[in-house]
This record gives sequence, structure tokens and C-alpha cells, in this order.
Amino acid sequence: MKPYVVGIDIGGTNTVFGIVDARGVVIASSSIKTLKHADVNDYLDDLHEGLTRLMEANDAVDKIHGIGIGAPNANFYTGTIERLVNIPWPTPLPLAQMVSEKFGIPVAITNDANAAAIGEMTYGAARGIKNFIMITLGTGVGSGIVINGQLVYGHDGFAGELGHVIMKRNNGRLCGCGRTGCLETYCSASGVARTAREFLELRSDDSLLRNITVEDITSKDVYDAAVNGDKLAQEIFEFTGNILGEAFADFTTFSSPEAIILFGGLAKSGELLLRPLRESMERNMMPQFKGKVKILLSELKEADAAVLGASALGWEAK
Amino acid sequence: MKPYVVGIDIGGTNTVFGIVDARGVVIASSSIKTLKHADVNDYLDDLHEGLTRLMEANDAVDKIHGIGIGAPNANFYTGTIERLVNIPWPTPLPLAQMVSEKFGIPVAITNDANAAAIGEMTYGAARGIKNFIMITLGTGVGSGIVINGQLVYGHDGFAGELGHVIMKRNNGRLCGCGRTGCLETYCSASGVARTAREFLELRSDDSLLRNITVEDITSKDVYDAAVNGDKLAQEIFEFTGNILGEAFADFTTFSSPEAIILFGGLAKSGELLLRPLRESMERNMMPQFKGKVKILLSELKEADAAVLGASALGWEAK
Repeated sequence: MKPYVVGIDIGGTNTVFGIVDARGVVIASSSIKTLKHADVNDYLDDLHEGLTRLMEANDAVDKIHGIGIGAPNANFYTGTIERLVNIPWPTPLPLAQMVSEKFGIPVAITNDANAAAIGEMTYGAARGIKNFIMITLGTGVGSGIVINGQLVYGHDGFAGELGHVIMKRNNGRLCGCGRTGCLETYCSASGVARTAREFLELRSDDSLLRNITVEDITSKDVYDAAVNGDKLAQEIFEFTGNILGEAFADFTTFSSPEAIILFGGLAKSGELLLRPLRESMERNMMPQFKGKVKILLSELKEADAAVLGASALGWEAK
Repeated sequence: MKPYVVGIDIGGTNTVFGIVDARGVVIASSSIKTLKHADVNDYLDDLHEGLTRLMEANDAVDKIHGIGIGAPNANFYTGTIERLVNIPWPTPLPLAQMVSEKFGIPVAITNDANAAAIGEMTYGAARGIKNFIMITLGTGVGSGIVINGQLVYGHDGFAGELGHVIMKRNNGRLCGCGRTGCLETYCSASGVARTAREFLELRSDDSLLRNITVEDITSKDVYDAAVNGDKLAQEIFEFTGNILGEAFADFTTFSSPEAIILFGGLAKSGELLLRPLRESMERNMMPQFKGKVKILLSELKEADAAVLGASALGWEAK
């Protein structure tokens, strides 16, 4: 087997790519701008040039086993990106095939949360765990579900959209998916900011957050205020952790995972989020599952995580 | 490979067992009373005698590949029954081992809803379907989840408790599991009867159901009234189908199944239940899953289904 894989993480702004060895060490990485390229072929040329340069500089040409790509709305089965937001390329885009033809190397593709799950299983907190759920708490809430050591893709490749289970059936917040009450409208970074705006409007107590223009409040602002002892900001984390715990208790009835692993900006809130999350999860858990499900944090370095996750898929590429 | 398997379905009242061939034909079946035996060893003696007689009468001695058992709260991994309701045997009960030693034949055990899923996959509506969810609508709501052709047991053997996802987070009905708002408090046969009692108390319109003592109303009474044009009874099915559809839309975000297969008494309500169920599922579905998930009815004969389902597990017994 060839000794390296390549991981490519396609984000709305940047595309980061790196060469990774079998122990999960990122040998070298680089990036190009995603959005710069109105034509996907220009983008591929740029990617080809950048990655070829990286391989040459690291004596990795002809040593790449496979390329793994993580991208929003990417389908493992079809190798296509189904929908793109803010990127003007035609969809469905057969990206796996396009990249494979460009490099002459097998390519596999999946969405970013699934890539994170595979990365965690291969190199991170889920090593040796056969049944777990990866939850990414970023701008949205993503998920990758692993059962019997296999990623769950479902019959069409789109399984694992746990950010879109309905947590509030009445008067729920409008979600980007067009429905209301989805988990991610409450428990993502932007959900936390929305909660802050709601709390500030509905309540009259003092808060450090009142010093910030209400439209500009971010989850980081809420975190900073909470760490500084701000009561209202701390209650926002209680509220967020409570809903997340309710959701995790429901997820457990489905696949009874050994662990739920958190990744993403909000996951770095520490006990501010984790304490109310654990308490709520246990309080809402069906009796036979109480005390059984671990909440773990990702063990992948954030700078490397997206590339590592995508690269792990490269070992499976055929 | 030996040509037959045995399926044993352990219910609170009766234990039904049968000899099944590779095409899913129940060659012969019989039953004993479960509850009659205060001592589990007496029960096993009785089962041994009954099943041996059945095997002898059908020239099946030494032709049994394995025995599959379906029982409430049975754990596939450990081979034990974890909890028993209304049966006074000690738990956890290592039933797979006890039966295996009694007969000298490999035994596998799982809960009744998982057995139904395996039966449907082996002999019924799920033949050729690799990703589906079996929902049993009986006194409770049970589930068996199949992903990539494999039953989902989870890390501890207890996955697939979809009757206990929370559908009403406020003011939900008390569930046998000790929590409130579980799916099965609304969408089981007893849930339908509870809805009838609620509707009759809260509303004042005429209904055929008012001719029945309110405590005695069953889901069958509601069905009969609805078929006879009773508006209130029809609305009970609307209410039930609506909640079930909300739940199915959430389940789809998890495993994106090709089909959800219904089994059990309530599943025989036909379009009274299926129309509002399908409408609600599609209305609540995340856009990318709309129109993709089939609602199918079990294709196993009800009299044989439990034995068939358990027997299918017998092929896997080692």
C-alpha cells in the first residue's frame, strides 16, 4: 500500500489540502481560495497546481494511496456535490470523478461532518469505539453516525442530518432548511447568538452583552461574558446545553452509542456547555441508557482536523 | 447446512414455537403457556418436551441449524433477558445459554421488534432492502433498525427504542418507561385508546364511542367507529398519524431509510392511519428527503410473523 493519503477540505472561503501519513501526521498542507473561481475547471486547475507542488516538495508523487474530500452536501455514493451555497458552480457536481481524472488517483468524497467522524475514528477520540455519534457544533449542527465501525450513509447517501431533528414543534425558530424548530437553530454557534438576542429582548436584567450591538453578538461574545461571570450569558449556555441534552437522549434510543463526540467552536466552551448538557442528557435519558453514554471532545487539532478527517477517507478510496 | 431453524416467540401469556424451512415456510408450530411456570426451569422442561415432540413428529430431529428467540428486553450480545414484566423469573436471565444447553443447538436471542425486522428482511416486505426501519404498533411501539443490511444493536445491545423518542416536551403523557411524552404514549394501540378518552372528555360532539364505557375503549373500537363514518374517531386517526409522521421525518434524518415498515394491530387500520401518516411525514420532512421514504406494510402473515421473525435469527446462531 502506498504510504500517504491526501485530504481536501472544501469550505465556502478556503480549500485546505494536505498530505497525511498512516499515523495521522499531516506531512504538509496548503490552501487555495474556493470562492475566487467562478468556473469549477479553473478551480480544479488551481487545486491541481497547488497539490502537485505540495507533493513534489515532499517527495510524495506516486506515493498517494487515495484522496479524500470533505465538502458540504457531498454524497459518498454518487461522488457528487448535490447543492452549493454561495459557490456558483453547477450542481450536482461530479467532483470525485473530476478530481480523480485530474490526478489519476482514486477519490472518495463525503460531507464535512462525516469526514470529521471518520477522522476521529481513525486518528482521534473514537479510536477503538465502534458505535458513536460525531456532532459538529459550528455555524450549523452537523453529524456523522458510526455503527459497527461503519459510517451510516443511508440508502441515498444523506443519512446523519441530526442538526435537523425537530426540538420545538410549536413556535420553533426558522431554519435554513425551510422548516422550524430544528436542533441547529438552537445549538449551533449562530443558535447561541440567536438565543442571546432573544434573551436580551425578553429580559431586562443587566448583562455585559448589552454593551454589544445586538445584531453583532456572536457565540464567542456570549462565552466571554459567561466566563466573566455574566449571569444572563451563563443562562444562555444552560438553555443551549439543555436542548442539546434532550436531543442526545433521543439519539441514544436510535443507535445506543458508546459515546457522542463534540467538535467545533462551541465544543470549546468547556463546562459552561458540558455541565448543563450532561445533566440534561441524563435527566431526559430512557432509564436503561442512563449513565452509559460518554460525552467526549474531539482529539484532533483544530487546524488539522478537517484535512485529517477528509484524508482518512482517502484510505477507503477505490 | 441443516435445512431447518426453530423460532420461539416468548410473550407474556403464550410461548409460540415453530419449525421453519429456508424459504420461510412454517412446517409446524405449537405453543405452551408462559405464565403457568413460576420456576423458569419448569418452563424450560415444558418447552423442551413440546419442541422435541414437534421435531419428532416432523422428522426434524438433528436437522435444526439454530434456534432464534424473540422476547421482550432480550439482548442479542449477552443472550440474556434483562427485565421481565409480569413474569416472576430472576433477571438478568441467561436464556440463550439455558436453551442451548437444553437442546444442544446454537441459540440466538433478540427483542421482538428486532426479530420482526429480521423476519421481514429474510422473508417479507424488506427482502432486498438494505436500509429500513421496522415499526411495530402494538400495545407499545417497538422498532428494529436495519442499516447496510445489518440490524442495529448499538454498543450495549439495546439500540432501536424509537417508541421512546420524546414527541411532546411539555405536558406529555406519562409513559411506562417513567418519562413523559414518548411516541408510544400516542401512537400505540393503547395510545389511540388514550387519545379517544382525551377527545371524549375535552369535546362535546356526538360520537359512536360515547356508547362505550370510557375506560373500556380500545383502538379496535376507534377503528370500527371511524370505518362507520364517526367524525371524532376519524380525527383520532388524524391525530395519531400526524404524530407518527412527525416522528418518521425525524427518524429519516438519522438513517435515511429506503422504507419504514409497519407491523402490528394498528398497522391494519389502512388509509385511516396511512393517509394522515404519509401527509404528515412529507409535510415535516427535511427537503432533501421528501418523496423518498416508502411506508410499507409487513408482508408476514400475522399468525406466523413472530415465529418467522425469531426463526430467521436462528440462521445466524453460532
